[in-house]
Amino acid sequence: MINDPDKILVESVKRLLRRDATTRLRKIVKKTHAADLSLVFHSLSIPNQGRLFNLIDDIEIKGEVFSNVGEDTVLNLIEDLNLDDVVEILDLMPKDDVADLLGRLPVEKSDVILEMMKKEGSEEVEGLLHYGDDTAGGIMVPDFIALREDTTARAAIESLQEEHLDVEMPFYLYVVDANGKLIGVSSLRQLVVVPPNTPLKDFMTTDVFAVKTDMDQEEVAKIVARYDILAVPVVDDTNQLVGIVTVDDVIDIIREEATEDILKMAGAGGDFVETKSIFKNIKMRMPWLFASCVGGIIASFIIGYFQESLSKLAYLAAFIPVIMGMGGNIGVQSATITVRGLATGRLNIRDIWSVVSKQLMVGLILGLLYGTVVGLVAQLKYSRELFALSVGIAVLCSMTMAALAGSLVPMTLAKINIDPAIASGPFVTTAIDIISVTLYFIIATTLLGI
Amino acid sequence: MINDPDKILVESVKRLLRRDATTRLRKIVKKTHAADLSLVFHSLSIPNQGRLFNLIDDIEIKGEVFSNVGEDTVLNLIEDLNLDDVVEILDLMPKDDVADLLGRLPVEKSDVILEMMKKEGSEEVEGLLHYGDDTAGGIMVPDFIALREDTTARAAIESLQEEHLDVEMPFYLYVVDANGKLIGVSSLRQLVVVPPNTPLKDFMTTDVFAVKTDMDQEEVAKIVARYDILAVPVVDDTNQLVGIVTVDDVIDIIREEATEDILKMAGAGGDFVETKSIFKNIKMRMPWLFASCVGGIIASFIIGYFQESLSKLAYLAAFIPVIMGMGGNIGVQSATITVRGLATGRLNIRDIWSVVSKQLMVGLILGLLYGTVVGLVAQLKYSRELFALSVGIAVLCSMTMAALAGSLVPMTLAKINIDPAIASGPFVTTAIDIISVTLYFIIATTLLGI
Repeated sequence: MINDPDKILVESVKRLLRRDATTRLRKIVKKTHAADLSLVFHSLSIPNQGRLFNLIDDIEIKGEVFSNVGEDTVLNLIEDLNLDDVVEILDLMPKDDVADLLGRLPVEKSDVILEMMKKEGSEEVEGLLHYGDDTAGGIMVPDFIALREDTTARAAIESLQEEHLDVEMPFYLYVVDANGKLIGVSSLRQLVVVPPNTPLKDFMTTDVFAVKTDMDQEEVAKIVARYDILAVPVVDDTNQLVGIVTVDDVIDIIREEATEDILKMAGAGGDFVETKSIFKNIKMRMPWLFASCVGGIIASFIIGYFQESLSKLAYLAAFIPVIMGMGGNIGVQSATITVRGLATGRLNIRDIWSVVSKQLMVGLILGLLYGTVVGLVAQLKYSRELFALSVGIAVLCSMTMAALAGSLVPMTLAKINIDPAIASGPFVTTAIDIISVTLYFIIATTLLGI
Repeated sequence: MINDPDKILVESVKRLLRRDATTRLRKIVKKTHAADLSLVFHSLSIPNQGRLFNLIDDIEIKGEVFSNVGEDTVLNLIEDLNLDDVVEILDLMPKDDVADLLGRLPVEKSDVILEMMKKEGSEEVEGLLHYGDDTAGGIMVPDFIALREDTTARAAIESLQEEHLDVEMPFYLYVVDANGKLIGVSSLRQLVVVPPNTPLKDFMTTDVFAVKTDMDQEEVAKIVARYDILAVPVVDDTNQLVGIVTVDDVIDIIREEATEDILKMAGAGGDFVETKSIFKNIKMRMPWLFASCVGGIIASFIIGYFQESLSKLAYLAAFIPVIMGMGGNIGVQSATITVRGLATGRLNIRDIWSVVSKQLMVGLILGLLYGTVVGLVAQLKYSRELFALSVGIAVLCSMTMAALAGSLVPMTLAKINIDPAIASGPFVTTAIDIISVTLYFIIATTLLGI
C-alpha cells in the first residue's frame, strides 16, 4: 500500500513534467527526501525518469536515488549520463551499493568505471566486487571505526571528530590489535559515559559477534536480528576486520528473502518479477507451469485408462475437482506452514518427526471431516451408497496424503540442504493431483466393481 | 534452517537435563547468550522448560528469555513461578515487551501483576496497555532521551552519564519544548563532534520523522526501513513525545508481517500456526478448506449437469485436471506477484491498469503456448480435431482468465483497503476452478455438438 502523501507527490511531479515546469520541479526535488523521491521514479516513463534525474542538483541525492530505485531504473539512468558524471555520483555512495551496482552493469562499462574510480582513489570498491553478491563480503561496507586497545575514550572521541566523518553509521567502535585483528568492541554510548582517560581495553566488550566474509547474507541477517545489534563486523580468514554489515541493509535482506520465498512457493521465480517486462515474466514463470502441464497430462492419461468405467458411470467425473482441490489446498497449507516455520527458525529440521506427525494428524482429522461432508453430498445427489463411500474415502486419502507430503517434502529438502521454498510450488501440488486422481479411480472402480 | 552450534547446544542441554547434571547446566546457561538460550526452550518439554528456567541466576537474562521465547512458552513459564518473581523479572524487561506479555495473560492475572508493578513505580507499562497491539503505541518503548533546545552538547553528554543509563538504544537525543512537544533531534554522533558549548538548537535537525501512537505497526516499519533510521519517535495527538520505536523491533515486525502474508496466501490463518496445537491448527485451517470444499461441490454439480455429454464422450473427463491445474497455478502466480509487490511497495494501487494488463498479456501468451501443447496431446491421443480444439481453447481461456483474476482481485481489494493477501488463498483459486470447468464443458459441448 502506498501512502497518500506519496500519491500526491507522484501526481504533482507527473503534472509538472507534462507542463515542463522546470523551476517548480526543481523546488519540489530540493525539499523532498531522497527516499521519497526514489519512489517517484518507479511511476515515470523512461524519458521522464531521465528528465527528473537531471533536475537533481545535489550529487549526494543523486547517489541516494541510485541506491534506492530498482535495478532497471538505475541502468536506464546510467545509460543517459556520461561516465564522468556517473563516477562523480558513485564516489559519494556507500561502497556496498556501488559494488552492487557495478556488478549489474555490462562488464565493459563497469570495467571502465572501475578504472576511472581507481584513479580517484576508490580501490575499495574493486575489493568488494570479489565477494559473492549474497555473502557478508558482498553486503558489507569497508568504512568502520577501528582503534587500538590503548586508545583513551577522549582520544577516541577526538578521532571521531577528525577522521571518521564519512563512516555510515558510527555506533560501534571496533578495537583491533597491531595486525588489524578484531579483539573487542565499544559503543559510542560507552565512550561518553566513562572517564575520558580510560583506555578502550578497560571497557570494551571482548565477546564480539563477527561473521566471515563468505557467510550467506541470510545467516548474517539472522545474527543481527537474533542479537538485536545495529551492525556486525565482518572478518577475513585471518580474523582481520575488513568491513561491517549495518542494520539498514539487514532490513532490506530480510524483506528480499521473504519475497524470494513467497515467489518461489508460488512457482513464480525468486526474483522481483513484478516490475520486470512481460517477456521476462513469461520466461520466469514458464518452467513451473510446464511441470504443472506435464502433471496434468499424466492425470489425463490416468483418467483415460479408466475410460470404460467412466462411460458406465459418467458422474464419476463430477467429483474429480473437489478431490483434487481439497488435496491441493491442504497440501499447500502444510507446505507453507513448514517452509515458513523453517525460514523463521520456529521449526527445526531435527524435529522432523514431530512436525510431520502433527501435520499427518491434522490431515487425517480434516480429511475425515470433509470426506464425510463430500460423501454425504454425493449420497444426497446420486443415492448410491458405495459411490458416496468411494468419494468420501478418496477425499480422506487425498487430504491425509497431501498434508503428509506437504510437510515431509520440505523437511527432507531442508535436511539435505536444498531450499525448501521450491517444495510448495507446483511440483508438490502436481504430484498430489496425480496421486489423488489415481487413488479416487482405484477406490471407486474397486468398490463399485466397474 | 538452524545452525550447527545451536543444534549442539540443544542436544547438550537435553542430555544434561536427562542426567540431572545441575552444576554443568548452570555453567552452560551462564556462558550462553540469552538469545541462543531462548532458542533451546522451543525444543524442550514443558516441565523441562521450567527446570531450565530455574537454573538461570541472572534476572535480566530471565527477562530476555521472556522477551524472546514464543507466547505459549512464556505462559507456561509464568504458570510455574510465583507472582513476586514474575514482577521482579518484568521490572527489568523493555516496557513494550512487558505490555505485550501482559496483554496475552488472563485478565485476572495481568491485573494483579499490574497492581504489584505499580507499587514498585512502573506505571508506564499500564499506559502502554491502552494502545492497540499492532500500533506504534503498542510497540514503542517509553524510555528515550529528551532534552531542551538550549542544553549544550556538554550538558547533554553529562545527562547521558547520569540520568539515562536505562535507555534501551540511545543513538538519538530528542529535543522538546517546554510542553514536551517534539521540535528536533540530534544523534549521539553529532553531540561528540561539535564544540562542547554549542546548544542543541544550533545543530539539531528540525525535520524529524515522527509517527502518531495509532499508526499501524506495518506503516511504522516501512518508515524506518525507507529512511534507514535507527529509531522513530512516537507522538500523541498534541505532538507530545511519548516514546520511540527502535529498529530491532522493526525487524521483528517485518518478519512477522511477511509470515502473516505468506500464511494468509496459503489459507492457513495469519498467525504462527506452525507451533500451535493440532486442535488450533485445524481450527485455523478449516474455514479456508471449507471455501474450497463448497467450490468443489459446485464444480461437481456443474459437471453433473453435463452428465449426458460425458456418457457420450467419456474422455471429456480426462482433461479436467490439466485445465483446472493450469488455471489454478498461473492464477496463484499472478496473485502472489501482485500481493507481494503491493506489500513491498514495488507495485502501486494507482498503477492498477498497467499491472493488470501486463498480467493479462502474460496469461494470454502462456495460455496460447500451453493451450497448443495440451491441445496437441489431446489430438495425438484421441485423433478428434474438434475435441482437441476444445481442450486447447479451454486451457487458453482458463489461463488468461486466471492471470486476470489473480492480479485484478488483489489490486481491487487493496484499493478498497481490504488486505489483498487473502485474495490468493483458496477463494480465488476456487473461483478459478469453477469458472475453468464451466468454460471447458460449454466450449466442448458447443463445438462437438453433444
